Amino acid sequence: MENGCISPAVAARLPRYHRYLSALLENSATRVSSNELSSMMGVTASQIRQDLATFGAFGQQGYGYGVEYLHGEISKILGVDKPHRLVIIGAGNIGRAIACHGLKKLGFDVKALFDTDKKLIGTKICGTPVYAVASLSGYLKALGADIAVIAVPAAAAKSAAELVFSLGVRAVWNFTNVDIDAPEGGLVENVHLTDSIMTLALRLNLLR
Amino acid sequence: MENGCISPAVAARLPRYHRYLSALLENSATRVSSNELSSMMGVTASQIRQDLATFGAFGQQGYGYGVEYLHGEISKILGVDKPHRLVIIGAGNIGRAIACHGLKKLGFDVKALFDTDKKLIGTKICGTPVYAVASLSGYLKALGADIAVIAVPAAAAKSAAELVFSLGVRAVWNFTNVDIDAPEGGLVENVHLTDSIMTLALRLNLLR
Repeated sequence: MENGCISPAVAARLPRYHRYLSALLENSATRVSSNELSSMMGVTASQIRQDLATFGAFGQQGYGYGVEYLHGEISKILGVDKPHRLVIIGAGNIGRAIACHGLKKLGFDVKALFDTDKKLIGTKICGTPVYAVASLSGYLKALGADIAVIAVPAAAAKSAAELVFSLGVRAVWNFTNVDIDAPEGGLVENVHLTDSIMTLALRLNLLR
Repeated sequence: MENGCISPAVAARLPRYHRYLSALLENSATRVSSNELSSMMGVTASQIRQDLATFGAFGQQGYGYGVEYLHGEISKILGVDKPHRLVIIGAGNIGRAIACHGLKKLGFDVKALFDTDKKLIGTKICGTPVYAVASLSGYLKALGADIAVIAVPAAAAKSAAELVFSLGVRAVWNFTNVDIDAPEGGLVENVHLTDSIMTLALRLNLLR
């Protein structure tokens, strides 16, 4: 199948499918019906059958879907069947939390953190080494990394992103509250914590 | 104005307006035109004028908007003109990062973390005390808190959320990769880190 054929709506649901199938795999489930997935995920069974059919996975009457097969197919579409290499720019609280978040088992191998703080350089955080930002260029050339996590103070966010993009990183996972522009051929995915808590506050205020 | 009159589309943009206006305030800006906001935010100036008019803020020709006034009005709509009280359940890496994220200046006062780890109980993280989960009930009754951050291991996520909702917390900010159901009158805002990085991987895969 052509990846380009996935509709944005299906694409938005794929990470959730992957998450539930990963949990099933961890629990050694071998098969799952669309009805079971439906009650777990709060999506209608017909929606699930339709979604999964768009990338060629058809459940069998009375059997359902093979969990491992389905997990593997969705992993391929998500591109996590082969490991991604990540670097984290900024070894502060957010950078540390990402380094320690266990992303490796999801296919995201955090290779190094980079910081300007001499007290941190040379240490390890959850087993991952912290290097000087000054060595980023050489490091990326030697090792390659396709994703950079931006977890620096807001004032340094844009320059950090420009730097990693200029060094060949194609994707930025942005944890700062700064909106970062992606260059052509690059992309930015945001985790705007402050926007998220503001949304929570607004919803709480509207609930009153 | 009635809060209930905000359209979902405008509501979704409000945290961003608040974020840009906060930055302007920090830089001691007193006024801003819709054109300036437009170029900063990448939203058309007419969209901005229309959005801001929905809650009664009208810029003046040749003057623009008063930054402090606009920031104050948006703060009121978001409900962050009065401080929220937060507790964080789980003092692991994510819980620590939230405790140290400087949310207080945004109007979110992190009062305490709660954990089951005896090594952490009694310590402080970025100035915020860590208490035993067993003392949560008494603490919430005494102090009150309207928002609980759920930053526990996945297996404990649902029970932690049920506990805080049963103790009168009305909003959960969920950092686990578990989907949590809100009871009637309660709400859940998710920061699903694994879904976010999976989305990044998918976008990267589609880009190839």
